[in-house]
Amino acid sequence: MLDPLFKPKSVAIIGASTKELSIGNRIIKNLIDFGYKGSIYPINPKADEVRGIKAYNSILDVQGDIDLAHIVIPNKYVPFAIEDCGKKGVKTVIINSAGFKEIGGEGVLLEKQIVEKAKKHNLRVFGPNCQGIINTSPNVKAYCNFTFTKPEEGCISIIAQSGGVGEVINQRFSELGVGIRMYASNGNACDISIPEIIKYWGEDEKTHVIIVHIENLSNPKEFMEVAKEVAKKKPILGMKTGRTTEGAKAVSSHTGGLAKIDIATELIFKKSGIVTFRDQEELCQAAVAFASQPIPMGKNVGVITNTGGPAIIATDELVEAGLTIPPLSKKAKKILNEKLYSAASVNNPIDVLATAGAEHFRAAIDVLNDEHQIDSIFINFVTPFFVDTDSIAYEIAEVNKFHKKPIICNLMTDKKQWTKTIKILKNGGIPYYSLPETAARSLIAMTKYYGLKSRDFGSIKKFSDIDEKRISNIIQDKKKKVSDFLSAEKVNNLLESYSIPVAKWRLVKNSKEAIQAANDIGYPVVVKVESKNIIHKSDVGGIALNIGKDDLEPTVKDMEKKFSAEKPKFLIQEFLPGGRELFIGAKAEEGLGHIILFGMGGIYIEILKDVVFGITPITKREAIDMISSIKSYPILSGFRGKKGVNKEKLVEILLRMSQLVSNFPMIQEFDLNPIIANENRVFVADARIRI
Amino acid sequence: MLDPLFKPKSVAIIGASTKELSIGNRIIKNLIDFGYKGSIYPINPKADEVRGIKAYNSILDVQGDIDLAHIVIPNKYVPFAIEDCGKKGVKTVIINSAGFKEIGGEGVLLEKQIVEKAKKHNLRVFGPNCQGIINTSPNVKAYCNFTFTKPEEGCISIIAQSGGVGEVINQRFSELGVGIRMYASNGNACDISIPEIIKYWGEDEKTHVIIVHIENLSNPKEFMEVAKEVAKKKPILGMKTGRTTEGAKAVSSHTGGLAKIDIATELIFKKSGIVTFRDQEELCQAAVAFASQPIPMGKNVGVITNTGGPAIIATDELVEAGLTIPPLSKKAKKILNEKLYSAASVNNPIDVLATAGAEHFRAAIDVLNDEHQIDSIFINFVTPFFVDTDSIAYEIAEVNKFHKKPIICNLMTDKKQWTKTIKILKNGGIPYYSLPETAARSLIAMTKYYGLKSRDFGSIKKFSDIDEKRISNIIQDKKKKVSDFLSAEKVNNLLESYSIPVAKWRLVKNSKEAIQAANDIGYPVVVKVESKNIIHKSDVGGIALNIGKDDLEPTVKDMEKKFSAEKPKFLIQEFLPGGRELFIGAKAEEGLGHIILFGMGGIYIEILKDVVFGITPITKREAIDMISSIKSYPILSGFRGKKGVNKEKLVEILLRMSQLVSNFPMIQEFDLNPIIANENRVFVADARIRI
Repeated sequence: MLDPLFKPKSVAIIGASTKELSIGNRIIKNLIDFGYKGSIYPINPKADEVRGIKAYNSILDVQGDIDLAHIVIPNKYVPFAIEDCGKKGVKTVIINSAGFKEIGGEGVLLEKQIVEKAKKHNLRVFGPNCQGIINTSPNVKAYCNFTFTKPEEGCISIIAQSGGVGEVINQRFSELGVGIRMYASNGNACDISIPEIIKYWGEDEKTHVIIVHIENLSNPKEFMEVAKEVAKKKPILGMKTGRTTEGAKAVSSHTGGLAKIDIATELIFKKSGIVTFRDQEELCQAAVAFASQPIPMGKNVGVITNTGGPAIIATDELVEAGLTIPPLSKKAKKILNEKLYSAASVNNPIDVLATAGAEHFRAAIDVLNDEHQIDSIFINFVTPFFVDTDSIAYEIAEVNKFHKKPIICNLMTDKKQWTKTIKILKNGGIPYYSLPETAARSLIAMTKYYGLKSRDFGSIKKFSDIDEKRISNIIQDKKKKVSDFLSAEKVNNLLESYSIPVAKWRLVKNSKEAIQAANDIGYPVVVKVESKNIIHKSDVGGIALNIGKDDLEPTVKDMEKKFSAEKPKFLIQEFLPGGRELFIGAKAEEGLGHIILFGMGGIYIEILKDVVFGITPITKREAIDMISSIKSYPILSGFRGKKGVNKEKLVEILLRMSQLVSNFPMIQEFDLNPIIANENRVFVADARIRI
Repeated sequence: MLDPLFKPKSVAIIGASTKELSIGNRIIKNLIDFGYKGSIYPINPKADEVRGIKAYNSILDVQGDIDLAHIVIPNKYVPFAIEDCGKKGVKTVIINSAGFKEIGGEGVLLEKQIVEKAKKHNLRVFGPNCQGIINTSPNVKAYCNFTFTKPEEGCISIIAQSGGVGEVINQRFSELGVGIRMYASNGNACDISIPEIIKYWGEDEKTHVIIVHIENLSNPKEFMEVAKEVAKKKPILGMKTGRTTEGAKAVSSHTGGLAKIDIATELIFKKSGIVTFRDQEELCQAAVAFASQPIPMGKNVGVITNTGGPAIIATDELVEAGLTIPPLSKKAKKILNEKLYSAASVNNPIDVLATAGAEHFRAAIDVLNDEHQIDSIFINFVTPFFVDTDSIAYEIAEVNKFHKKPIICNLMTDKKQWTKTIKILKNGGIPYYSLPETAARSLIAMTKYYGLKSRDFGSIKKFSDIDEKRISNIIQDKKKKVSDFLSAEKVNNLLESYSIPVAKWRLVKNSKEAIQAANDIGYPVVVKVESKNIIHKSDVGGIALNIGKDDLEPTVKDMEKKFSAEKPKFLIQEFLPGGRELFIGAKAEEGLGHIILFGMGGIYIEILKDVVFGITPITKREAIDMISSIKSYPILSGFRGKKGVNKEKLVEILLRMSQLVSNFPMIQEFDLNPIIANENRVFVADARIRI
């Protein structure tokens, strides 16, 4: 329960200051200016009052209960303040002071000490090294923060890992004239975490939209689980920064987090159903639409326009993002033909013409509201001087009362002259934008959310035809050795224990044994040199493919000669003529589980980077989605008379790998590379595992 | 000379109206409101005056000279008005009236008639079906347009094919508080064209930046030639809309242009050196920086910040766009260590800390100005309440006076409170932005312009070892036939005449002749079935690769049997073991020349769409750039021990193809597919040409 943090009945400021330009003074000013409804207790042993409010020598001297205390004193004194807060029975503290985990060394220890002390007293900690919170609710009006933007009341709540980014977002909403509900930026987040806040807002009825900014996730699994639940109920708009090496380096120097270049956050957002943004402007603009309009129930947009060029731009944006602008029914066209000017275009986009008045716009909106195949309405509205634009705005606002389908408006006007038209739209709850791109992208984001919300991945299937004990033994045994990698033999045993098909294989010492092996396996075969000193076999000529009966003996003898210094063994494997090379990999991600990779092998992964990722465990639906979302998917499906691969069997391998790594978290890396597949068979031809 | 259009000393309005909400009235209102410096002559046979200005029965009744006349009467009367204007000696007309090429049929004829009449009288025509022009120059103050946005004076000139898009851009600058120089939207553009206007602004000293919006180019070659010259002198920022099929469909229904889904405009922009945008907001924001700052001389950015998160976002943007944030010199770090707070970060980004004052910012800017490797300065400036932000702004403006290196500022503030800080930056000519992404993208656009401006493609090389006459004969001969495609034999002759290497080949009738041919060519060979009824040979088993001596006879005999119904011939070609398949194509583009394509063959083009384009003729530099910009380029270069292809020879084929199609404009399509290449040899194995 984060009520004492977000709805405090009383706030103390430990480190309240009489100096105008100090944080300990500013927080009090902000609380007063914002109209805070509770009691304020400045704590300052040297002053009688701060900004006209009685100050106390110690928090222990305060008579009433204290929900929330700011701590703004130098880092080394913070543990003592925590002790006092604990004794006083304070429920939550916001530690604005810096000098903790983010500076390393003693800071880390200090932070640990604080967490322990707070836990002892059942005291919750927000921060340290943070801004604080804002709650615009008229009953609360808490501005427990030292920044400068004073938001109006609204239904968007913002949690930002970076205070700077949070403030910029807050500022942008203020510029756009859009209110927010609550705000939080929790810095080092030693106790109260981002997932906890998201969960709290998930249950807050007046929060309709949640914005989350992430630099790095300290507990990705918890975040994912919470976000997944909340995103089912209300949209979460997410942004991750620090994507480039340079950016991530900057993250690590500014926060107490560990820099990691990964794709994990993106995957976590996707799996959680968070609508992801790479741009604060797009995020804020989309939030305006999310905050006021219902979610479209599909991808089909009806466009109404009274101008040409900007409608083209909107169309380009919508279509490029995968939305569609479907044709209208005959009935709809008939109505439009009757009600619009004769030169109007009654296709979709509906061009009502620049001379169109309120009744024409209304007719077009009504028609789109009645068309079953239309999911959302995009209005492209320029304000010509020769029509009554106020009436048009009024009609749009009027229809919007029914909230039948989402309406987004690109309003092209002079904001200094058409103030009334704008006001009517604003009061009518119509999200309006200055540019067709911005308006279109907001609708695109809402449509994406619908897709995320309505998807059904199904449940995780458990394979039971596996020999977990045998695997444990192989992995246990591994622990006793020095090398990080398991031998080919062990890897094959491991795969077989999990019923993951492996190419028929034999390990042999010489050409004579090779011939015996090949006779059992069947020709043609693959010959691979086996020696722990030879890592990149293909680069040194240690792999021979498609070897027939006649070529086997000379091939093995050649290799014996070539690698005689290594005294190698040879792996004889079955060869699948016309088989495609595929790749499945898994990599442990701290605090999360494993990331699983899929792609075609060789140049497709190495050069074309055509690879997709998932977070284990994955469902069958997710596996199918992964396979079909690589660019080279048509090759797997078969094209121009060439046969594809057996996708059923491929999906099963992905799912077994997913279960395997989920059940054995000690596996650090596991690559099946290559997997060989044709239209009938799919099997692993080589694998590598690191524990 | 477009002076009478853009700097008219007098404007007549044929169709001046006393009705408040008519265009013929609005234009006069706009001229008056904007403070037009010349004479206004309303032409209206039924009124004595319009908006207090004496009206004339006919333009012929006006005493003084007339530079410019608006025509706003119904389409069918326009030709008569043109006659009158001609007689009067009017220099230019703006035809605002619609009902011409864009409606087809009689409209097309009407427009043609106008052009002819105007030509007779040496009268220039702007439009029809257009908005008009604006000139903010204090000596002119011409608002010859019926729209509503009144711009301030500035140095950005805007030409928009779509009036709607132009107005939105104009509006956006107005909102941003940025002035413009001139504005034009010329609708159907029957006479005065976009290239002519760009050329005029190229010579206008007070135009520093040109913005151009295109839906479709009517004369791409002229546009390219003009834009190329002007872009060397001043930046042209371009945007093309109607990119999707749906968008282009909307283009064709709104303008008199022909809808074409192509990549030509993008290529033309690139070849001209136009900085291309896909977003009006980005375009306008970048224009602000272009209008006030020098162009960076390279990709190296020095970043100064007083906050964490937003600097990370800026870094992500800059780095992802290919800009670099290089380390600072020892000397620079030493100075910064002396002058900044001890906790400041003296790396690049330089974190001056939130508590930094004017002297710290100044020190950091001075250091970056002195660092030779730094090309531009990005300042990330949040306004904490506890520092004197006015002084910081003042120092930034102060340094900017020297215009040593471009300075871009991301200013994160409350615009209602920090008005003075903002004013200092604005008056100091510092482009400031509300978001790090916006600021970063503006700097990226400027850096791109530097790249475009400073590139040197060299000149077109002419090959002389060619037999043009032989080619003419082949192509002439072609004209007599029915089929669109030339035969394999003719195509090979054609390529040989242009010294484009072709695989050794023979056309044979049976297996016996095949053996003779292969003995001459050398083994292994390729066997291809030849018959005009068999188009996709490989799909039906009509191609056999890598055929050795023993396999030739049975292979040909098999094909004879298989295709016996067609009575086919056989092409015997040399086979290049380990050769890569490549693709070069050329396609005629109306009014432009040819577009030339390059990529790797097969799945790389068909499935992965890994292909690049150029406009012929291309230079050697352009050919090299094309080859190295496909995603699969590492395969051509060789990777992991595998050899690449001979790029010198490949470049030569591209250049010869470029010359060939340039010299023979009647060639509609010409595909070299595949070209076979290894590290030594490159030759064409199959080709297809359509005249």
